[in-house]
Amino acid sequence: MYVLYYSPGTASMVVHLALLEIGAPYELRLVDFDKDAQHAPDYLALNPDGKVPTLVIDGRPRAESAALLLMLAERHPEAKLIPPPGTPEREAWQQWAVYLSNTLMSAYRLWFYPHELGAEEHPPAVRAALQKKIEGAWDLLEARLAGRGPYLLGGEFSGVDLLLTMLMRWSRNMPRPATGWPALKRLADLVRARPSWRRLYELEGLAGW
Amino acid sequence: MYVLYYSPGTASMVVHLALLEIGAPYELRLVDFDKDAQHAPDYLALNPDGKVPTLVIDGRPRAESAALLLMLAERHPEAKLIPPPGTPEREAWQQWAVYLSNTLMSAYRLWFYPHELGAEEHPPAVRAALQKKIEGAWDLLEARLAGRGPYLLGGEFSGVDLLLTMLMRWSRNMPRPATGWPALKRLADLVRARPSWRRLYELEGLAGW
Ligand SMILES: N[C@@H](CCC(=O)N[C@@H](CS)C(=O)NCC(=O)O)C(=O)O
Ligand SMILES: N[C@@H](CCC(=O)N[C@@H](CS)C(=O)NCC(=O)O)C(=O)O
Repeated sequence: MYVLYYSPGTASMVVHLALLEIGAPYELRLVDFDKDAQHAPDYLALNPDGKVPTLVIDGRPRAESAALLLMLAERHPEAKLIPPPGTPEREAWQQWAVYLSNTLMSAYRLWFYPHELGAEEHPPAVRAALQKKIEGAWDLLEARLAGRGPYLLGGEFSGVDLLLTMLMRWSRNMPRPATGWPALKRLADLVRARPSWRRLYELEGLAGW
Repeated sequence: MYVLYYSPGTASMVVHLALLEIGAPYELRLVDFDKDAQHAPDYLALNPDGKVPTLVIDGRPRAESAALLLMLAERHPEAKLIPPPGTPEREAWQQWAVYLSNTLMSAYRLWFYPHELGAEEHPPAVRAALQKKIEGAWDLLEARLAGRGPYLLGGEFSGVDLLLTMLMRWSRNMPRPATGWPALKRLADLVRARPSWRRLYELEGLAGW
């Protein structure tokens, strides 16, 4: 049994999508950012970092979206969210999951939370530098996907495509949204056409892209 | 057969330590930062991001230190660098590997490479904010280890302790080195007493802490 602590459209998205892909029963609990519920003592007991997502797995609270994707993928091999042990594709998957988390997720965190760099609002130079960091990742991913797409692992969809599409979505109001890179857009279109993506939009009350 | 592209004392350390723990044969190739060898075309063909480490696994170049640790741990279960599939300890391992990579590794990157935030040198407010981010991770880890140490998974050493100790080492010239946190220091002392750590110092020509 899974319990997902989430906030619509945030890093919990990829975990929610994975649960929908798997078709496992789960319970959804909203963490209301407007009420700062992520910093309430009962939530901090589950997630000392005060962030979403938290996924409770058989009573054990776990965190970090990319790690939760990996845990769910391993627990449900039949959903084929990760290639089987001992395959080169699994290594590629692991590399992308860490790359996306280490590079894009951390750069977005600063983009959206300027106070974590000590500012109310980013000075233009910092803003430009973060934008460049994020766009640099799109360049690198585009080169990869243009050569060996349409998915991150090549011909086959997998869980890291969910993670990437979520991260692409976060760029939609940036000066250069990720969908401006053609191979990235193609991947996002494929992921957005999946039933899990549509169902997520209904369940989380999301709209647009 | 493994080939590790490394630079002494950098993010390649954890991969080198894992290889030594495993006792697998490997070849070591220096990427000379003084010559900017990480940006030479032949290296970029292996690692388009121009960073170390790269680990070539049976001819396949792979990157991202935390992912390489995971790949090696899975390929050599007898070395017990990661708990077996289907255990709660494995989930905890995965969470820590992603947390350390996402939080500490990315904050250090900015700490050591100010130009990635558009500056020659960090303005004091940014410097203080990055320091706070890194120290916040020590606080969170200390709380965890003080309760359920001495290792990240509790009583048993595992590969994520290598990752954490490498990251702790990078703080040695910061205003508040990680060894100032007692449970963190205890973990680092245990890891530094391992034969793999001592051998790494010889092979990479490292000194001090
Ligand atoms: N590294 C974490 C990052 C999670 C994260 O930053 N979540 C954001 C939403 S996308 C959050 O909880 N923000 C609320 C806050 O920090 O107060 C992960 O990948 O799960
Ligand atoms: N996310 C990467 C980061 C690797 C990284 O930042 N490596 C640094 C050394 S610690 C590097 O290659 N620096 C040289 C450069 O960026 O030019 C990983 O964990 O492997």
